[in-house]
Amino acid sequence: MTARVLVVDDILPNLKLLEARLTAEYFEVLTVTNGADALKICADGRCDIVLLDVMMPGMNGFEVCRRLKQDPATSHIPVVMVTALDQASDRVRGLEAGADDFLTKPIDEIALLARVRSLSRLRLVLDELRARAMRSAKLKIADPLAKAMDGGGARGRVMLVDDRRSSVEAMSGALRADHNVEVEIDPRAALLRGGAGDLDLFIVSLGLAGYDALRLCSQIRSLERTRHIPVLAVAEPEDRDRILQGLDLGVNDFILRPLDRNEFVARVRTQVLRKRYADCLRENVEASIEMAVVDPLTGLNNRRYLDGCLADLVDRAVRDARPLSVMILDIDRFKAVNDAYGHEAGDRVLKSFAARVRKLIRGGDLFCRLSGDEFVVVMPETGLDAGAMTAGRVRAGVAAENFIIAADRPAIQVTVSIGLAESADDAPPELLRRADKALYLSKQRGRNRISANSGRLGAAPFGGMRETAIF
Amino acid sequence: MTARVLVVDDILPNLKLLEARLTAEYFEVLTVTNGADALKICADGRCDIVLLDVMMPGMNGFEVCRRLKQDPATSHIPVVMVTALDQASDRVRGLEAGADDFLTKPIDEIALLARVRSLSRLRLVLDELRARAMRSAKLKIADPLAKAMDGGGARGRVMLVDDRRSSVEAMSGALRADHNVEVEIDPRAALLRGGAGDLDLFIVSLGLAGYDALRLCSQIRSLERTRHIPVLAVAEPEDRDRILQGLDLGVNDFILRPLDRNEFVARVRTQVLRKRYADCLRENVEASIEMAVVDPLTGLNNRRYLDGCLADLVDRAVRDARPLSVMILDIDRFKAVNDAYGHEAGDRVLKSFAARVRKLIRGGDLFCRLSGDEFVVVMPETGLDAGAMTAGRVRAGVAAENFIIAADRPAIQVTVSIGLAESADDAPPELLRRADKALYLSKQRGRNRISANSGRLGAAPFGGMRETAIF
Repeated sequence: MTARVLVVDDILPNLKLLEARLTAEYFEVLTVTNGADALKICADGRCDIVLLDVMMPGMNGFEVCRRLKQDPATSHIPVVMVTALDQASDRVRGLEAGADDFLTKPIDEIALLARVRSLSRLRLVLDELRARAMRSAKLKIADPLAKAMDGGGARGRVMLVDDRRSSVEAMSGALRADHNVEVEIDPRAALLRGGAGDLDLFIVSLGLAGYDALRLCSQIRSLERTRHIPVLAVAEPEDRDRILQGLDLGVNDFILRPLDRNEFVARVRTQVLRKRYADCLRENVEASIEMAVVDPLTGLNNRRYLDGCLADLVDRAVRDARPLSVMILDIDRFKAVNDAYGHEAGDRVLKSFAARVRKLIRGGDLFCRLSGDEFVVVMPETGLDAGAMTAGRVRAGVAAENFIIAADRPAIQVTVSIGLAESADDAPPELLRRADKALYLSKQRGRNRISANSGRLGAAPFGGMRETAIF
Repeated sequence: MTARVLVVDDILPNLKLLEARLTAEYFEVLTVTNGADALKICADGRCDIVLLDVMMPGMNGFEVCRRLKQDPATSHIPVVMVTALDQASDRVRGLEAGADDFLTKPIDEIALLARVRSLSRLRLVLDELRARAMRSAKLKIADPLAKAMDGGGARGRVMLVDDRRSSVEAMSGALRADHNVEVEIDPRAALLRGGAGDLDLFIVSLGLAGYDALRLCSQIRSLERTRHIPVLAVAEPEDRDRILQGLDLGVNDFILRPLDRNEFVARVRTQVLRKRYADCLRENVEASIEMAVVDPLTGLNNRRYLDGCLADLVDRAVRDARPLSVMILDIDRFKAVNDAYGHEAGDRVLKSFAARVRKLIRGGDLFCRLSGDEFVVVMPETGLDAGAMTAGRVRAGVAAENFIIAADRPAIQVTVSIGLAESADDAPPELLRRADKALYLSKQRGRNRISANSGRLGAAPFGGMRETAIF
């Protein structure tokens, strides 16, 4: 996997060395010698991964990292800090600034390449999601980044897979204050439990007795239910080859024993944060998609959804030889409400109307707002008589209690006219047209009433129409 | 990268050999001995990649592949056919059945692993997109798969990067009947041109003189504008190591010289088809997101979009000390149109109204349908007087020409009442409320007219209201 790697170092020979090594592996390399230039390139979206020297004159690496991670436009770019010292305290400082990993000079080239490859692979999916989510942010639907930056990686649900008691106790102790920690000794059980709930992180000891921990990591990555859950591997220094293999399998991060408590806490937080970020992007895209079929005022499905579903419902009714009825509801003289009390009052009536009708129909009925003051209820498994019963209940329920329009005004009476039609082998547009004709009859005959069109008396105007009793 | 690999072979030792090899590399392996079982596992979504033996009793590999690729639920799963014979004609037959690649027995294990790894990486992004697109299909917004299966990988825009004349001629000749082929000798120019348009495929000769073709492949994968474009590499048999490296860099497929014309054509078609499939998923998700802010009847933005944008536009006007006005438009006695002529006629009026008004306002104005027969136009850089000019033009333009409601009925006169308000440091809801009050005045005074609310005379009812002349 290739990627555009930005190398930031004030010392030219270091820069050239990394550039040559990465270029030989077919990465696209950009180099800069100071933090300000690095920030600019990241802000312009010109790189996928940053290798960042810590010790630089002017703005040091920690500060550059902090700024990258605080800016929603760049916070998703992985940062690997390159440091001359191998002090746990330095690593913690970097992790707290938001770094994704560390490499110590002199650089182990194989570890470097494994890490950069692993990060570029993780980036792939995130980029795709980000592009969609950014689209919805641009359309002002939602701001996924603002939400993703909240929380700060605390209160994660973390599963610890380790069979050494002392190690489990130390790790749980370090995390318990910030996270909800579960411990599992058996890797198979861990996989099952992890896939069942909304886990934020697996922490897997590579030294499990009697089970290859890399196998567990691979299974976590493969299973549909767990593949989005990050894995932090806990390894011994002599596990180097297995760590590299783990990165290749999709392990997100690793930490060496003996564990530095602060570093451990910081790495866990980083992974939980990244998981939440990806979750937010996914939720955001899904929510945007759902919005396309929901009327924002009433929360009902809209006409687009009705158009998409009605044909299927009618087809199914025909195929199973079951009845299906639709009713069109139109609030009587709604225009007068808007004119007399203003649109806010009108909107309030529409919302209350939708909520009230929702309670009077069945859960399986499809209730949509067509536009303005016009609504449709599609009732599967319902013939004209049963449909008229429901319509009567709705009409009476609406008229029974006045609608509140504002805190300081008296509630007003609202009534509804209803047109009902039963599906009779005609296409959905024709079915709706018949219900609409019945509605027109209800309006003509004085409103606040129900008319039904059985569709069985042919195509003459108002053929088969009958006015039902007002229940 | 790991994945769930399904191995299909009727000969047990073959099955066991592949299983052992893949398991050792931490792939999750499922094995079955016949095509029917393979189809079932794929339909259940239990595998990511299929290794499929050609020669099996009952349903052979070609048939299994064809069925997998014809079913929209499984067509995205990559299939690698494993064949005892290395005949170009077999490969073509498999490619035509939809196979993604071939391996010849005895299997070259390194090539196998490189290929499976490459396919599992390609799958990652596609899976993520598919999950979102399936969501919108479930909501009946669109059926991305039906569209993606159309076209069959023909009429692609293909760029051939090769500097050997005879090779270019042979390849162009083979593709010209089905595709739009462009040739580029210079790799840098290929990258620029490929990123500029809607290219479907790069075909890159690994034997370019004076330029490392793998570098070009890596650049194609890295650059934002080209990273979604597939790469088919053309290699010599002795290029084996570079082919494996290329797969690792993200090259999608390769073919060996001397080229078999039919195989070449089939591989190109497969890649173009896959590109289109991914494009369809992406477009589908984007379109679903856009739908959330678009009114389906008129194509105008909806209230959700207005709510998202108005605050920004008002803020910007305040910050730059520039005027901004809004008008609310309400079609006069629209209810009567619906009642007299039916909802279809009413919808037709709404669509024509939106189209007519769109032409009478500026391109930079934001025009939204609020609900039913009510619309809003937000006019940046516009004070009350200029706003009244525009409103006058809209009112006159609507009244000037009758609206067609049906082919067999006379066109009807429609008029619009307009309320206008200029932003005056008040929040967006208050600004809209003032415009709404002005609209109410227009209605009260007889409709088909414009009233404006400057907002400058304080908060008394109808404070600052003036009726403008009808232009």
